[in-house]
Amino acid sequence: MGAKEDLAKFKKILDRELKKYLDLKVREAAKVSPHAKELMDHIYDLTLRGGKRIRAALLFYSYVAHGGKNKKEALLAAMSMEMAETYLLIHDDIMDNDNLRRGGTTIHESYRLIAEDRFKGKTNSSSFGSSLGILAGDIACGMSNEILAERNFKSEFVKRALLEMNRIYIIEGYGQALDILSEIREDVIIDDVIKVHEMKTVPYTFDGPIKIGAILAGADDKKVKALEKYSYPLGTAFQIQDDILGMFGSEEKLGKPVTSDLKEGKKTLLILDALENCTEKQRETILLYLGNKRVSLRGLEIVRKIIIQTGSLEKSKKMADDLVKRSYKSMQGMKLNKEGKDFLLRIADYMVKREY
Amino acid sequence: MGAKEDLAKFKKILDRELKKYLDLKVREAAKVSPHAKELMDHIYDLTLRGGKRIRAALLFYSYVAHGGKNKKEALLAAMSMEMAETYLLIHDDIMDNDNLRRGGTTIHESYRLIAEDRFKGKTNSSSFGSSLGILAGDIACGMSNEILAERNFKSEFVKRALLEMNRIYIIEGYGQALDILSEIREDVIIDDVIKVHEMKTVPYTFDGPIKIGAILAGADDKKVKALEKYSYPLGTAFQIQDDILGMFGSEEKLGKPVTSDLKEGKKTLLILDALENCTEKQRETILLYLGNKRVSLRGLEIVRKIIIQTGSLEKSKKMADDLVKRSYKSMQGMKLNKEGKDFLLRIADYMVKREY
Repeated sequence: MGAKEDLAKFKKILDRELKKYLDLKVREAAKVSPHAKELMDHIYDLTLRGGKRIRAALLFYSYVAHGGKNKKEALLAAMSMEMAETYLLIHDDIMDNDNLRRGGTTIHESYRLIAEDRFKGKTNSSSFGSSLGILAGDIACGMSNEILAERNFKSEFVKRALLEMNRIYIIEGYGQALDILSEIREDVIIDDVIKVHEMKTVPYTFDGPIKIGAILAGADDKKVKALEKYSYPLGTAFQIQDDILGMFGSEEKLGKPVTSDLKEGKKTLLILDALENCTEKQRETILLYLGNKRVSLRGLEIVRKIIIQTGSLEKSKKMADDLVKRSYKSMQGMKLNKEGKDFLLRIADYMVKREY
Repeated sequence: MGAKEDLAKFKKILDRELKKYLDLKVREAAKVSPHAKELMDHIYDLTLRGGKRIRAALLFYSYVAHGGKNKKEALLAAMSMEMAETYLLIHDDIMDNDNLRRGGTTIHESYRLIAEDRFKGKTNSSSFGSSLGILAGDIACGMSNEILAERNFKSEFVKRALLEMNRIYIIEGYGQALDILSEIREDVIIDDVIKVHEMKTVPYTFDGPIKIGAILAGADDKKVKALEKYSYPLGTAFQIQDDILGMFGSEEKLGKPVTSDLKEGKKTLLILDALENCTEKQRETILLYLGNKRVSLRGLEIVRKIIIQTGSLEKSKKMADDLVKRSYKSMQGMKLNKEGKDFLLRIADYMVKREY
């Protein structure tokens, strides 16, 4: 069985628990007021209507890999990573002004529409939408911590797990701030992009869940720290693959227009490397399309060609492969439970082979 | 010594620790990037440039009252309440579109100005300001939890304290959502206002800090729960006094224009009670000024008179007094350390006697 099948199976089991938990939270909110219930309904929908559950799976299998025996409790702890994801997505979508997420309307946009419908002329709909979005994110953040704090592991492990989770939230904030600045600044270099990846993507997608799983299984600080050799290369490889898919993927598999990344003007490693290695004329062409809101499929094709011609695509692919190999290698020497370790190795492989 | 002097003394000691902690965080952020440092500088300034430290003091003295011996560690834990305050203020100010806080520019407004200055024409300054404000709040939230998770108490107590803190954050989110809706809806009744107080003000200002202090001192669930008889009446009294000051206070002591609350159209208990008990003509007068952005001092004087004539001011004052008495009484029966208990009693008294 490959990582894709592993994940699909895990998602099924996790989502059953997640649904139970969210059902309970909706009932709790309903006791507070119909408006609180409506807000929790939005959190419920967004959380359950999509997501591959990679973060939750990494927490769970890392727990297993580190000899954890209470799988039932670890599964519940893994939900915290999905609520972390919900929290960060809600706030990111406000900042990026995105209206779609996981095939549905984003929460701030839903509330903007609610305001248009119910409070027309009495309030600024966009501000109202953002405000309720900020609150939905804040609540989901509280939930992610609540889930961890409620877990029945040794208190010392739970305390350390919560410390890790909130350090991730701090670094995540810095990463997102740098990302926003990168979109505006014109002097972005490859190092800036790597820094954003290392702060915005790796901690909460790879390093955090893997460490929290290990901590909950009772791994000592040294062992936990050593996991960075697995998580950082893997996380960077994941992001490179994400950027490749954003430029060369298909709309069907991406779930968004293939021109999205180009329109957004995303300064990915792929783009920056191409800009460094192309002719002056090619450079002008890339800059003509990058961040151009009216870029067509033809424009995308032209940029794709330049990225291939400069060798940047091959270079990025090779870089991702090399990084995954480093992750792989770091795992070899670790004494870990076979079931968990096998998953961590398979998922590393999957990260660069996935098509969405 | 009265509660005011207690608080001033406590603030001095706490702020020394808070400054040390924030200095460290600024240095940490500087290692990440100059932009991360700039963001942390804003959090630093907002946290240190004001605040009476009531929440931190309540946590600290509740810890002492419940027999806690490690005062040094409790002082550090108390910082978490101030970072919670920073977090909630930053996000509230975005939602309320406020430019001033604690005598300085709010964080989202500062970043709006930064965008105007540095990135003119390249980004929407208001959105940029809000985005960086959201992130500053998110980071401060992570810090509040980090501070608690780092504390050297019995792990089980820290775990329970973190559970309490994040339950506060969830209920706080609901409370703020209801508050935003109250400002828009026209059919707000006294029960709605009390609900907002009970969710938005009481948990994080009174109930939460007092419970967290007790938890960290090792109080059992029953004792912790019993504290609600102290915190809820007190918190509601505090809010009633806040509303009275917002309508009858002086600009000098409030630190904001005396017409602010009236301009905002705040539907306080005071206003709702006056609306219920006034003549039809007086009702029209109140509604003419409530939420009127151009209300003058004369307008305020007219509304003040109606509130006095209807007896609503006296009623509110009496209600606050009665609530404080209930808080007082609940404390009498509790077996608590004298130093801590004395503070909790004095602060209850201060809540209705304060002038700002």
